[in-house]
Amino acid sequence: MPLTRIKAITFDVFGTVVDWRNGVIRDLRTFGQTKEVTADWESFADSWRALYQPSMDKVRRGERPWVRLDDLHRESLVTLLGRFGIPGITATEIDHLNRAWHRLDPWPDVLPGLARLKPRYILATMSNGNVSLMVNMAKRAGLPWDAILGAEPAQGYKPLPHVYLTGARWLDLRPDQCMLVAAHNSDLIAAAGQGFRTGFVVRPNEHGPNQSTDLKADGDFDVVAADFLDLARQLGC
Amino acid sequence: MPLTRIKAITFDVFGTVVDWRNGVIRDLRTFGQTKEVTADWESFADSWRALYQPSMDKVRRGERPWVRLDDLHRESLVTLLGRFGIPGITATEIDHLNRAWHRLDPWPDVLPGLARLKPRYILATMSNGNVSLMVNMAKRAGLPWDAILGAEPAQGYKPLPHVYLTGARWLDLRPDQCMLVAAHNSDLIAAAGQGFRTGFVVRPNEHGPNQSTDLKADGDFDVVAADFLDLARQLGC
Repeated sequence: MPLTRIKAITFDVFGTVVDWRNGVIRDLRTFGQTKEVTADWESFADSWRALYQPSMDKVRRGERPWVRLDDLHRESLVTLLGRFGIPGITATEIDHLNRAWHRLDPWPDVLPGLARLKPRYILATMSNGNVSLMVNMAKRAGLPWDAILGAEPAQGYKPLPHVYLTGARWLDLRPDQCMLVAAHNSDLIAAAGQGFRTGFVVRPNEHGPNQSTDLKADGDFDVVAADFLDLARQLGC
Repeated sequence: MPLTRIKAITFDVFGTVVDWRNGVIRDLRTFGQTKEVTADWESFADSWRALYQPSMDKVRRGERPWVRLDDLHRESLVTLLGRFGIPGITATEIDHLNRAWHRLDPWPDVLPGLARLKPRYILATMSNGNVSLMVNMAKRAGLPWDAILGAEPAQGYKPLPHVYLTGARWLDLRPDQCMLVAAHNSDLIAAAGQGFRTGFVVRPNEHGPNQSTDLKADGDFDVVAADFLDLARQLGC
């Protein structure tokens, strides 16, 4: 089926749309300066992200009921404040720091790329982030989403199939009328398994200077792009 | 609580944001000209809308499982094509005509009013229309929603309480941080019952020149406005 039949482009967000690592490090540094606490904030940010998949796995396996990512992030944050030996942080301060994930900036190509895609395609998130996280991030960063799909609407975490399929169903589209754009091979392979079209965008610095994963497309994806402007060009925008 | 604590404004859509009656009549007339069929299209449009609440009532009462508004609209349309004696319409033509509800235009004050509200507030739909209907309408009309909330996300129809409450929960807001804006007293009274702030906007021509309902606010609402520009002004935008 030609790519011209695509009606909606859905996006993984953390890493693909926004630079979570530098954003989280920035807010951790500000927090440290305000509280007069020193720590290896880069290591803290990487450790926070390292707890991301394990925290969702318990929900995916049904070992705990549905809980949104903000709450998983907060549990991980409390764990890490202990592990890094940072005491005396109030609940309000933890809540604010946890919302660093709401204050992430997009990669430089994202806003101009989405502006080109917006007139022709429905643009939606397909993230494991909860709705309020996606909405607050979009308001701050100017991300022009037409709909917030993904984990919370489906009450489950990617790569579970029903997350992708619920998104397509809510748009009243067949899966092959939807594309997932992601910087992560595993996400795209899962979406392709449900009939989605796929667009890989390489983000070689998502995990910092020593990144070793997702440096290239490892699957037979419909589009492989250098950034969102290249993606828009390849989709005829 | 002062109105300044409001974070999100949610909107009823049919009648409040868009002029469904003139839009549906327009598409029915085009359909009639194309098919060389004559009928009282104003009466057809009013009859279509008259079947709206009864069709949702069966879902509200649990007499049938969840079904989205597009499907209810289509069932009503098929009924009315029979009642108005219009035979020989193909399934594809019915599907297209049914999507007249996706092609409705906003009232003239809506886009400038929402543009004023957008920088300060989260703007979301709180409609009984399904997600694809809301998204397609917004793409065509330029409605700048930050999120699509309402019936399909909650899998239920207003005025059931959990529709309003699911919307607030997804935004991670207390109900009293959310306002419902509607041209219908009953919708606002139901939302207020769940703790929402309320904004009544009068739409005296929603039901045509002989409208007899919702010509004034019948409740103690937080804001009563002449249109969306007046609403924005009263909310400090």
